[in-house]
Amino acid sequence: MPASYAYLGPEGTFTEVALRTLPEAATRELAPMVSVPAALDAVRSGEAEAAFVPIENSVEGGITTTLDELVAGAPLMIYREVLLDITFALLVRPGTKLGDIKTVTAHPAAQPQVRNWMRAHMPDVTWESSASNADGARLVQEGRFDAAFAGAFAASTYGLEPLVTEIHDAENAQTRFVLVGRPARPAAPTGADKTSVVIWQREDHPGALMELLQEFAIRGVNLMLLQSRPTGKGIGDYCFAIDAEGHISDRRVAEALMGLKRACPQVRFLGSYPRAGVAVADVREPRTGTSDGEFVAASEWLARCQDGRF
Amino acid sequence: MPASYAYLGPEGTFTEVALRTLPEAATRELAPMVSVPAALDAVRSGEAEAAFVPIENSVEGGITTTLDELVAGAPLMIYREVLLDITFALLVRPGTKLGDIKTVTAHPAAQPQVRNWMRAHMPDVTWESSASNADGARLVQEGRFDAAFAGAFAASTYGLEPLVTEIHDAENAQTRFVLVGRPARPAAPTGADKTSVVIWQREDHPGALMELLQEFAIRGVNLMLLQSRPTGKGIGDYCFAIDAEGHISDRRVAEALMGLKRACPQVRFLGSYPRAGVAVADVREPRTGTSDGEFVAASEWLARCQDGRF
Amino acid sequence: MPASYAYLGPEGTFTEVALRTLPEAATRELAPMVSVPAALDAVRSGEAEAAFVPIENSVEGGITTTLDELVAGAPLMIYREVLLDITFALLVRPGTKLGDIKTVTAHPAAQPQVRNWMRAHMPDVTWESSASNADGARLVQEGRFDAAFAGAFAASTYGLEPLVTEIHDAENAQTRFVLVGRPARPAAPTGADKTSVVIWQREDHPGALMELLQEFAIRGVNLMLLQSRPTGKGIGDYCFAIDAEGHISDRRVAEALMGLKRACPQVRFLGSYPRAGVAVADVREPRTGTSDGEFVAASEWLARCQDGRF
Amino acid sequence: MPASYAYLGPEGTFTEVALRTLPEAATRELAPMVSVPAALDAVRSGEAEAAFVPIENSVEGGITTTLDELVAGAPLMIYREVLLDITFALLVRPGTKLGDIKTVTAHPAAQPQVRNWMRAHMPDVTWESSASNADGARLVQEGRFDAAFAGAFAASTYGLEPLVTEIHDAENAQTRFVLVGRPARPAAPTGADKTSVVIWQREDHPGALMELLQEFAIRGVNLMLLQSRPTGKGIGDYCFAIDAEGHISDRRVAEALMGLKRACPQVRFLGSYPRAGVAVADVREPRTGTSDGEFVAASEWLARCQDGRF
Repeated sequence: MPASYAYLGPEGTFTEVALRTLPEAATRELAPMVSVPAALDAVRSGEAEAAFVPIENSVEGGITTTLDELVAGAPLMIYREVLLDITFALLVRPGTKLGDIKTVTAHPAAQPQVRNWMRAHMPDVTWESSASNADGARLVQEGRFDAAFAGAFAASTYGLEPLVTEIHDAENAQTRFVLVGRPARPAAPTGADKTSVVIWQREDHPGALMELLQEFAIRGVNLMLLQSRPTGKGIGDYCFAIDAEGHISDRRVAEALMGLKRACPQVRFLGSYPRAGVAVADVREPRTGTSDGEFVAASEWLARCQDGRF
Repeated sequence: MPASYAYLGPEGTFTEVALRTLPEAATRELAPMVSVPAALDAVRSGEAEAAFVPIENSVEGGITTTLDELVAGAPLMIYREVLLDITFALLVRPGTKLGDIKTVTAHPAAQPQVRNWMRAHMPDVTWESSASNADGARLVQEGRFDAAFAGAFAASTYGLEPLVTEIHDAENAQTRFVLVGRPARPAAPTGADKTSVVIWQREDHPGALMELLQEFAIRGVNLMLLQSRPTGKGIGDYCFAIDAEGHISDRRVAEALMGLKRACPQVRFLGSYPRAGVAVADVREPRTGTSDGEFVAASEWLARCQDGRF
Repeated sequence: MPASYAYLGPEGTFTEVALRTLPEAATRELAPMVSVPAALDAVRSGEAEAAFVPIENSVEGGITTTLDELVAGAPLMIYREVLLDITFALLVRPGTKLGDIKTVTAHPAAQPQVRNWMRAHMPDVTWESSASNADGARLVQEGRFDAAFAGAFAASTYGLEPLVTEIHDAENAQTRFVLVGRPARPAAPTGADKTSVVIWQREDHPGALMELLQEFAIRGVNLMLLQSRPTGKGIGDYCFAIDAEGHISDRRVAEALMGLKRACPQVRFLGSYPRAGVAVADVREPRTGTSDGEFVAASEWLARCQDGRF
Repeated sequence: MPASYAYLGPEGTFTEVALRTLPEAATRELAPMVSVPAALDAVRSGEAEAAFVPIENSVEGGITTTLDELVAGAPLMIYREVLLDITFALLVRPGTKLGDIKTVTAHPAAQPQVRNWMRAHMPDVTWESSASNADGARLVQEGRFDAAFAGAFAASTYGLEPLVTEIHDAENAQTRFVLVGRPARPAAPTGADKTSVVIWQREDHPGALMELLQEFAIRGVNLMLLQSRPTGKGIGDYCFAIDAEGHISDRRVAEALMGLKRACPQVRFLGSYPRAGVAVADVREPRTGTSDGEFVAASEWLARCQDGRF
């Protein structure tokens, strides 16, 4: 039985394009799934080796479905991330003109990326959400809608043509995808790594969150993402998904994680993995006093103090 | 011309139910709009006096469309909030049984609130998103889908019947709605108030966000919400929507806001307004040293020091 | 050769009285020395096993000579502390009346403890410093001064009589003494311990000292003393002698010390030893998240994360 | 009656030399006093316009008598500071050789500045404290001691000769003196100013002092001195004398002082005055967000928010 990667389908979406940029994807069977939960459940059940799902985009922010699935249920771990530039094409049946379009569809996540363009170019067109961008294209093919926003690469699959391309409200629109598997030893650090963790707060007093962020700050660990997610226990009850620079095998990161573990009622480690789009040479040197060598030196000094050898 | 409140339509959704709990709604014309942006644009253009939209729910977190609309564009201000318990009914055409259902629809925001219930009770049913829960009910009426998740109150409007009621994955599921208008002097403090603000970070170094949160912590101001939203300038570039306890006329809140204004390249004040669901008697006393009286006393002391009268 | 304790002499001072409260003093030869540096040099040279010297008093603060000697030179370590209530007697030659006194003497450290009493009862009397309180008494015996402030216990030694007793400007005047030896493994924790350390700052920016104190605060370690001492490199260049609650074998203390070691260009450990005058039952429980058990649990959790076993 | 400056006498000490560097001293009667308390009492009683006393030296640290007198009693204010390089001469009666010296004297404050020199050059000589360095010189003239450490300028006054000059254990040994008067409006800022304040802590918990230092750090105010002084209420009960960069009329300093006033049970303002030895051009620019202009802008922004004009 070949190892397989589940991914958020259907075929022909940005997710598949992003997944195919991973070398290891070439040797796996790629299985499109109907939803992020379905893709992650396939991993949890052992049906798939890993799942590839979007987790953040530069226009919409964190993909809440993915975050919520990682926060709850059986533990999973992130092994890889991929950044993909996102631009949309307006796909129509051959012959359709802009003035002919009355309805347009796409996945809800596409909406904030095309909203301004729609206001400017098709203010009176009605938007209806579809289950995925590829699915929207299929519905156009079937005649249910007049146009779909999707990746230009989806046009041929559904017999459509791209009427307009390079649509993206924001410059540098990107989506970040992650490859998620069952927990195992994280890959060795590359020098340009990232660590993901979810924390819950113990109590609610002025400065409570600030004190948790101090665990990173005091050890010179930079935060790249802080995303609150409701715990489901009521309005105002949140946990925080955090991405920090560095690898769990870096002492400064390990110590910060242990500090959180002590200070929080619950902490969930989501993995340490290479940062996409960042060369090792571009990673900042750790702040004075926070390199592994300095941690080791401090630890040796402590041992000498405890032994009275100084 | 009567003053009007725009709201996220269509009629028969939770939003309308929440809006009608506001006494002032009884004297306004209530105008359903097709989307949150449309409702807010109606306010910006002067077409509506205010807009009533969902902003946070206890299952999904911040309603990103609403947050993003408040963060960008012409300034708006929040005047009121409403909390509404959310439970769904599964609406079907009369006679439909659970086993008959092949497709179900609702607004995407409903999905996380019914996901577990669906897994348990209709694992093989296909989900398709609709523009609103009410619209989903209409599509069931028209025969396009077999069932819709919506408020039980929507059944009669669309000639449907509630097959199952009280569906909610999480206990205490609530949605928070806000009444938004053009900027004006905030209402006087009630003693149980909340202040909303959006901040942008100046630079990215270990502790950057922590330092901003210190502006609240040092003045004893408790945070109720911290929601990151992408600025649209690329992955990892975020602003933060913050809800803090207290009113902009409380000195500790005013000083914290000024501290942020100095420390941040941009701050957007979103209003001070009464907290829904909290009695004045249940609000904590300000921490020693942070009451208005203590601010005034410190200011008078400073003036005496500056004058040499002590 | 019997082991000996050097102490700040001469005989008949508060220091000797305090030293004799230590059980171990009964089995040592006690050698009075002319100064604190002389007493500590006797330890450094191996001539004495330990030195007993005053380090802090409740009226004058840190005894700077002692602090400076511990901060510089070959490393020494504190093994014990003793608290002694300090009240002075005004010693005179038999027959002298208060109105007869023109000159009074004592060690300079006594001055702040009797200053107000002098203003009230002998405003026109001239103060002259002597090398020690006992030495002052001797000079009165020799007729050089009319009166001396010293412990009442010194009267008989020098043929004087206490004209007034229980003189102390401040209630609860106490002096703290320490027993200092060459570095060795600190005594095991008793549950009511104290750790002394000296730190130097790396750089001078707003918040530099605050950041160092965070190393204690974040780990729930309470500070009992923060005493700045000049480094001798110029006005404004200081190191800080710190006493913290807890023992170097407590994980929260050990981690704070390592944090300082990384953050500071220099740290000098001065010992962990039992707190005088504090019962184990009166020591506060460590803050949630800072007990040894929680440190161990966090460390084990980290190991599981690093191994992917969770 | 001419205005007079009291100073720590007698004539011929470093204090007088430092005082005469102040232009305003040329037009005042200069009155030597027997002690720092006497000099400050002369100001409190109205007998003197101001008092000039040492407050800090680079070898010994804070002059505790001066600090304690400023901390307690009727409020006083610092108006000027003077830095003076300190080197000692060994003064002897003409004809005395180094080998002849059996006893040496000086004010106790001189001891740490000559201790190492004494160990190296006159290890067997007995030290006895005198009330001042000038007084020590007088006692040598009278034959009571063989030598005195004092400023070389004192030799001629007492018919002595400097046997050795330029004695100072530490390079760059300096003493800082302050001109102290009754409270009045502080002088206008010069651009290179310093503010002195004494704070008392409200409660004793991990981080208590750190939280007070945050009041400065968060507003970008650099600390130049932090000196703990016992409150006299018992071992471990301290207040803190703080020197901060900037003037009470700088908004960042004023806000930090008000923050302390709110957070502390007691704060004593000791004055804002020009920094000695620092040119305006060498003063760092305030950190971004902490200039007066940015404070004003934030205040105006707040007013607009409170009025709804934005």
